[in-house]
Parts: sequence; structure tokens; C-alpha cells
Amino acid sequence: MSTPRILVVGGSAAGPKAAARAKRLNQDAQVTLIQKAPELSMASCGYPYYVSGHFDNRNALLCTPTGVVRNPAFFAGAKGVEAVVETEVTAIDRAAKTVWCKHLPSGETSVRPYDKLILCTGASPRVPPIPGRELRGVTTLHAMRDADYLRTVRDEGKAKRAVIVGGGLIGVEACEALREAGLDVTVVELLPQVLMFLDWEMARHVENHMRAKGAAVMLNNGVAEFLGQDGALTGVRLNDGTHLPCDVAVVAIGVAPNVALARDAGLEIGVTGGIAVSEHMQTSDPDIYAAGDCVEVLQRITGKKTLAPYGDLANLEGRVAGENCVLGNVARFPGTIHSGICKAFDFTAGSVGLSERRAKEEGFSVVTAINASPDKPGFMGAKLLISKMVADAATGRILGFQCLGPGDASRQLAAMSMAVSHGATVADVCMADMPYAPPFSLAIDHFIATAHILENKMRGLLDGLSSVEVQAMLNNGSRPFLLDARSPEEFEEMRLGQGETLIPLGQLRKRLDDLPQDKAAPIVAYCKISMRGYEAQRVLNHLGWTNVKVMEGGLMAWPFAREK
Amino acid sequence: MSTPRILVVGGSAAGPKAAARAKRLNQDAQVTLIQKAPELSMASCGYPYYVSGHFDNRNALLCTPTGVVRNPAFFAGAKGVEAVVETEVTAIDRAAKTVWCKHLPSGETSVRPYDKLILCTGASPRVPPIPGRELRGVTTLHAMRDADYLRTVRDEGKAKRAVIVGGGLIGVEACEALREAGLDVTVVELLPQVLMFLDWEMARHVENHMRAKGAAVMLNNGVAEFLGQDGALTGVRLNDGTHLPCDVAVVAIGVAPNVALARDAGLEIGVTGGIAVSEHMQTSDPDIYAAGDCVEVLQRITGKKTLAPYGDLANLEGRVAGENCVLGNVARFPGTIHSGICKAFDFTAGSVGLSERRAKEEGFSVVTAINASPDKPGFMGAKLLISKMVADAATGRILGFQCLGPGDASRQLAAMSMAVSHGATVADVCMADMPYAPPFSLAIDHFIATAHILENKMRGLLDGLSSVEVQAMLNNGSRPFLLDARSPEEFEEMRLGQGETLIPLGQLRKRLDDLPQDKAAPIVAYCKISMRGYEAQRVLNHLGWTNVKVMEGGLMAWPFAREK
Repeated sequence: MSTPRILVVGGSAAGPKAAARAKRLNQDAQVTLIQKAPELSMASCGYPYYVSGHFDNRNALLCTPTGVVRNPAFFAGAKGVEAVVETEVTAIDRAAKTVWCKHLPSGETSVRPYDKLILCTGASPRVPPIPGRELRGVTTLHAMRDADYLRTVRDEGKAKRAVIVGGGLIGVEACEALREAGLDVTVVELLPQVLMFLDWEMARHVENHMRAKGAAVMLNNGVAEFLGQDGALTGVRLNDGTHLPCDVAVVAIGVAPNVALARDAGLEIGVTGGIAVSEHMQTSDPDIYAAGDCVEVLQRITGKKTLAPYGDLANLEGRVAGENCVLGNVARFPGTIHSGICKAFDFTAGSVGLSERRAKEEGFSVVTAINASPDKPGFMGAKLLISKMVADAATGRILGFQCLGPGDASRQLAAMSMAVSHGATVADVCMADMPYAPPFSLAIDHFIATAHILENKMRGLLDGLSSVEVQAMLNNGSRPFLLDARSPEEFEEMRLGQGETLIPLGQLRKRLDDLPQDKAAPIVAYCKISMRGYEAQRVLNHLGWTNVKVMEGGLMAWPFAREK
Repeated sequence: MSTPRILVVGGSAAGPKAAARAKRLNQDAQVTLIQKAPELSMASCGYPYYVSGHFDNRNALLCTPTGVVRNPAFFAGAKGVEAVVETEVTAIDRAAKTVWCKHLPSGETSVRPYDKLILCTGASPRVPPIPGRELRGVTTLHAMRDADYLRTVRDEGKAKRAVIVGGGLIGVEACEALREAGLDVTVVELLPQVLMFLDWEMARHVENHMRAKGAAVMLNNGVAEFLGQDGALTGVRLNDGTHLPCDVAVVAIGVAPNVALARDAGLEIGVTGGIAVSEHMQTSDPDIYAAGDCVEVLQRITGKKTLAPYGDLANLEGRVAGENCVLGNVARFPGTIHSGICKAFDFTAGSVGLSERRAKEEGFSVVTAINASPDKPGFMGAKLLISKMVADAATGRILGFQCLGPGDASRQLAAMSMAVSHGATVADVCMADMPYAPPFSLAIDHFIATAHILENKMRGLLDGLSSVEVQAMLNNGSRPFLLDARSPEEFEEMRLGQGETLIPLGQLRKRLDDLPQDKAAPIVAYCKISMRGYEAQRVLNHLGWTNVKVMEGGLMAWPFAREK
């Protein structure tokens, strides 16, 4: 092999991976990694857990699994890669195949030649031009310095109130972190829900849980102004005029790819605003690759380009870019299905593929099912999971899966991530052979049960309504007969309180007189998780009632207020 | 629909599922479930956790998720299914379409007609004709009465020593249960390893862990005789003459399908000894279906018939049988990939698809990789996982995946179960888009890293040896140069002690004189998990050494004794 000079711009996730992979595959290569920040290979997804005090050793964010800090000496010794920190690449001269660098502490500039260039310039948090955003106390949670700042806020213990601007993934994680750090926290979200990767009624469960953990969640509202005194934040004024006093505000309304360097060099920028790359992670200049949060990639379900700024994909993309720039275009990145997961206090919430809302926006005709059931047998310490499966009505292909709750959603989402990636249908998942033992799952794993419900719906065996549809019926005056099929003991413990009639499933066949005598009257049957609601529907359909629906997921998936 | 009479024989897992599904899909059907035991729908996979004292409420093994015991009254009221317990079906008259029943407590016999019959007769534990097997204290762990007996042993606290005959899944679970119950436990296994779904070197880690938890594991040995006094067990004599005193012996050497009823009725029995069924779970008699541990099903990877007596599959098969017997053959069961998982003290161990040994037996030319690495970042409380991936060398299709350790193997196995089911290749898994956040996984999820190692091997970038192969080299005298690439601190803490040379990776390029000067000399490089071992190989190959191997999984995957 020749001795190519490979320059990698960006030292967070994609960059170090690309650099290390390139060097491993061509030991002759001179690989240089240029990083703007003082740190390298930061585990930035771990910042919230450092801020919260879940762990105290800052170096843990910068270490290998064996505890070695990934500094320039480490990169030189262990990886054979020259790492240059606190240095910004300010311009690319594609004709000369050089980049202009600026050493930030000294201001000195230099020019470095390359044979292959890999851009891993990442993304920057969006901060809208809200008045007061320069005040002390207004921050993001994106860079190591942000984590350091918020950790100091925690350790000093002076700040009492925080506002999180944005209820996305980082916003929810920041909410937990600062709540755990002892602050009163309010999340302010412009949209009608948190965690937009979830459908509305699923996100609502997360909001309820956040409130149960003492966080305030304000939806359909935004920050109009940061208010301050002597240069320090004292509060925020919301769009609706509300004034919230606070000492800290974390702006977490998403990120935008850093493409200025690429754009200024004349590289193609994609429709989504990310750097356009091929499946080989090659830009419009064959000698320049790009990877990580700065690029747009293929959405495997829609076939469209998308931004997918996730730490795991950055690593995979960096691996492909690093390999291809030394071996030619042999490796390919197949794209994303937008798998995501987050911890929100005692809840896990995640999604793979498309939500119902997104699938409809993409023009799919969808069928969906909601399932609320435990993650494992009761005798093994079952915890609740609520999931929603979205499939293409025409083909049965699963388009997406959401799962949340205190239970082990990680296993469910991991399995469904692979299923969705491989184009699995509802029928496939109905008969999935999963590793089963009571410490890990139910005999019929939670997501398989969700597929069973969806298959029953698709075949007309189960006629389901979501909680949102039932709520809409109650609101619009078309009052259905609500049939609660549980036991009297369960009814005393918890109930909707919407005028429902309790008829335990075991008594249903004997208490037909208690049902509407008009066989076409709308009936909504449910129970705790609506297994008994489904049984009730099958019985009543057989006995001639023609308009019986099952409220999917039952009371456990009901996201609105209950009587008790 | 007509009013078919559906008889289901067997009330454990497949039977109740089949009965309930059939009734739901045809409310006109008269569905009767005939069960030999007094209990119905027992969560038999939960017996070990009842025996251990993990929970105390026996009814929890017999309840719905909402706490209702699944007795005949429950089946009648909630499911519309007549359940008849303590009744054995002794014969089938296929011409008359009747079954002969015997009520066990009274001995009364009766004849019941059927239109469709579903056989869910399960399996029985194999108990070889060892002298003394009738002694009090010799038991299996299969039926509710076995669980009751062993729970009594625990609660009485008189028994001190137990021998488990067989180191399979039930044997390992029984070992944990009785150890947790306070007994001294010895597992005696005829084969050279426990948990035959794992390859030998993987099983060895489980054995080491069991021993660390105070259990004795004796391999390549069997029980020749149960010894007793006054009709009660006092010990066992092993094949090699060893005498082990004990108060309890649990025979757990596997199960055999219960096919006598089917065979006597002239139904086809398959090559494996299970009842032969189509993908519709239909036997050779179109009016008779079968499901659960008594049938043989398709192994999806080999295309051959196999026995797969797992509780989760019994439910899925029962669902298919119940549906097809009322709707015609509309549902199909696609078969098994032999997914399995078990808890062994603080370890989880599981497998999907074929082990290397099984794959070779099936004639595949295989490539494998072993990976030892944490399940999540160190700052989130990382725990070790060791995994092994087996792929078809010709196509790259993944044939199997094993994973074990104290970490969250359930997520790994769940994802790989779906990948293997869908025919994923190593390349597919290398670029899998998984839901990532630090509380749940590494940025490059453990099993993806395993695929990366395997891909590197398949492409000749990494030349790996398993611990077993290295051990064989050390034993056969072809002493390789062992290069430990860790730090001196790590070396002091833990090391092989096989004459290895410590050269920290960062110093490797400067310490070439410490290496064999014969560039063709065999070198085996490793570190804690062999990431640095791999880097060392890349460097040395580049510098002209031609026979450098990486010991896969490093010290963490080394299953033999170490110096420290």
C-alpha cells in the first residue's frame, strides 16, 4: 500500500472511529485527527448521568473500558493516530488538497495536506434567537463544557429551579438529571407532547411519569424571553405570558448538522441540510468522506434521506468512512430505521421505525395495535410495559414499534429493531422464537403479544379503539356503553369513572340484560389490559351485538385522568 | 359456523392456549380441555424460583397476570372452555372420533366424542433405569408435585446435600434453586460440559461461575446407583466409583415427548420421536392436531425436524392448532431456531440458532468469533458479556449466537434471535441500527462488536484463535510467543502466567527487539478483551511478522485457570 495522508476533522464519535479504523487497515497511512474541543472521544450520551451525580469521575466520560483516558498520547501509542486538539479546521482547499487549521489557544494558523479527508464535524444545538439567551445560567447540554457547567451547578447546590426548553430526548434526560441533582424542574415544550419519536398517547405516559417524579411538564408553550439581573438568569417568560422563576435554563430543542466547512468547500449539501454522502459515506468530492451527525443518511423504511444524529450510528458510519478511504469503496452503511431509547426516571421509552403519525405523513395506510402487559411473570417481579406496533395495512410489514414503561423495554426494542430492519411482517413476529425463561420475559414475549393483537385486528377478530379514540367518543357526546370486564375488587381499586358498567367477564353470559338491548348500540369493552375486554367482544359479537369495540391496552394504557 | 366439538388433551401450556384460541374464534364450538394433573396452566418454567424461595405464593404459578387462579371455574367463566382435571385420556378411537377418559381419583371411565382433537400431551422427564431410583429423595423437577416436594425440602431445612443428575438447562436451574435454598449441591454431568446449547469453551464460563457460587460441577461422570437406607436416599455412587452422600437427587437429563396415545392411535411419529405435524400443526389424521412438547417441528436453519420442548413455543404452536381446528389451515408455525436462555446465579446464558459444534455436525463450513466486552459504559455500571457468533463461511449467514455473563445478555440474545430468524448476514449485523443510550448498551452494542470481529476475521484483517486453540498450542509444546498488550498495572492484577511477555500496546513500536526476531515465529497477542491484541497484530503484520494471531476475547474469555 502507498502512504496516504488521511485527515479526519472532528474528534467526538465518528472521527476517532474513522481514524482508528483507517490506521488499522493501512498501517502505512499517516492518520491525523483534528479536534476543536480539548477532549477526545467524549461519551457525550453520558453527560446527563454525570450531571445527575449518577457517577462522579469525569474521566469516566473520556476513558477506554480499561480506564485509559483517550488523550493524544493514547491515540499516538495505542492507535498510531496523531490527535491534534483545540484546533479548528477553518477551510478546505479541494484543488490543493489542503485544509487550513487554527490553533484556538494561540490563534496560530497552519496548512495541512491530505490525500483523503473525512469530515466528522458533528452537529450543534439549535438555540433560537430568544432575548436573554446570553445570560449566565442559560446553557445547552451538548459539549463537555456544558456537562461541566451543569455538574458545577449541582455540586454548588445554589440553583434551586431549572427550566428545560424542549421535551425531546435530551430535554427529558436533562430533566431527570437536574431533578436527581435536587432542582425543581419544569420542561417547556412547544409541541403538544414530549419525545416526538413516540405517538401522542404514548408520550403522554412518559409525561405522567415525569410529573409523578415531581417534574412539571408544560406543553404547547415556548420560551419568549430569558429574564435576568446583573447578567444572570432569574426566570423565563413563556409565550402565553407565564413567568417561571429559575436559576438555570437548558435549551434542548434539537441539533443542526455542522456543514459550513463542507458547504464553503462546495460539497453537496442534501435536502435535509446534512452533508450529502453515498452509502460509502463519500461526499460529492471522491477524496472527501463524511460521517456522524453532520451527514444525512438513508431512512431504510421510507427510502428518503434523513438526519439521524445518534452516537451509535456515528460509530458505524465512521467505521465505513475510515475503511473506504483506505481500501476504496468496499464498505457500505445501509441507513437508519431511527432506533432510539431513553431513560426517564424509572421509565424506559423508545421507538424503532416510524410512529403512526410519521407513517401517515409518509403516505402509508397503517394499522396499529396497543398492548399493555407485564415484561415477565408476576412471580419474577413483573413490571408494566406499554407498546404500540404500526404496520402497513397492505403488506403487513411492520413499520414501527414503540415501547415504554417501568419494565425491560430494552429487550423488546432490541428485538423489534432487528425485525423492522429485516422487513418483518406482523405474521413473522407473531411466531417469533425468542429466548424465554421467567427471569427475562413472559412465555409469550410482550412484543409478540402486541403482534398477536395487531394480527387479530387485521383479520377482523378484534375490533380495537385506542384510548384517544375512546376519549374522543366521550368528548363528542356519542356516549358508548362502557363495559369494564374486571372483578369488583379491581374496580374498587382503580376505575375510569366515566359511567362504565362493571360486568366481570365470568358473569357476562349471565348478565346480558345489563347490556344495551339495541344490538347496534356502541359498546366499548376493556379490563386492566383488555385481554378480558377482547374475550367480552368475542362473546358479545357471537350473541349478536354488532358494534362492540375493545379499548386497546385497557386501563393500563389509558393516559388520561381516572376517577381512581 | 357449525357447532364443532373440540377436545384438547393436556392442560399445561399448549393445551389451554389452543382451547382458548379455538373458543375465541368460534364461540359456537364446545371446547373441552382434559388434564391429567390437578392443576391447569402451570407456569412450569417458574418452578425453580418457587423451590429456591424467590417467591412464596404457590398460586403465583397458577394465576393470570391479575391474580386469578386458572382453575376449571376460571376456564368456564372467562374462556368459555370446559376444563376437566385429574382425568387421563387413555385411547383415541379415530374411526368413531371418540376418546376414552379415566377419572384418576375414582377410576371411572367415560367416552367423549370429538369433531377435532388437539393433542398437547407434553413430555416426560427421562429417568434412566439406575438402581435405587425409587428411593425417597430421588425426584425430577418437571411436575407441580416435584416443585411442591422440593419446596418442602427447602422449608423443612433437614436436607443438607443435593445431587443434580444432568447439567442441562433444568439441571443448572435446579442447582441454583437448591443452592439458594441452602443446600450443598453437586451437579453430575455425563458429557464434558454443562448446557449443551453452548459450545464447550462458553459452557466452561458458566461452570466456573457455578463453582464460584459454591456448587460442585463434576463432568464426564454419571450416576451408577442411588444409595439408600430404609427407603430413603443417602447418597449416589458415580460411574467412576466416587461416593457422594446426599439427601436429595434431582434427575434432569432431558425430556421425551409423550407420544404413546398418538402412536397407539396410529398417528405418524416423526424421525425424532415426536408426533409428526405439518406447519399447520396437523397430524397425519386431518381431524387431529398436536402442539407443544409432544410434537416435532421444523428447525428453520437446518430444514430438518427437531424436538423443541420450550414453553414459549408451546404457546405459539397451541395458538396455531387452536385456530386451524376451527378455521381450517390458515395459520402456520414456521418452526424453531432453538432460542434458549437461562439464569445461573448471577450469570445469564443463552443461545439462538446453532452452536459451532452443531453447525459442523450439520455439515456447515463455519467461521466463528468470540467477544468479551461490557454490556454498557463503565460509568453506568458495566457488566461483562462473552459472546460467540457462528456464521456460514460461504454466505456469511449467521447460524448461531451464544451470549453469557453477568451483563444484560437478554437484550443481546433477543436482538440476535430476530436477526437469525430473518437470515441476517454478518454484514447486516455489523451495521445494525439499535436503540442506544448509556443505561442500556454500549454505543456499539456488544453483539454488533462481535459481528465486527467476525467480519474482520472473514476478510483476513484479524487472524484469531480461540482460547481452546491457544490452550492446545500450549499443551502440544508448540510454544508461541505470548504477547500481553496491557499495562503493567493490569498485568499485576491478573495474568495468564504461561511465560507471556508484557509489552503495553503504546510501547510496542519501540520494543520490537523484545519480540522474536524470526518473523515467522508464532505470536499470540491479547489483552483484557483483545482489542489491543488486535491493534498489536495489525502493527506487527505491517512490520513483517507473518504468524501473529489474536486470542479472541482476551483474558476475559479465557476459561482455564490463570496464575492470577
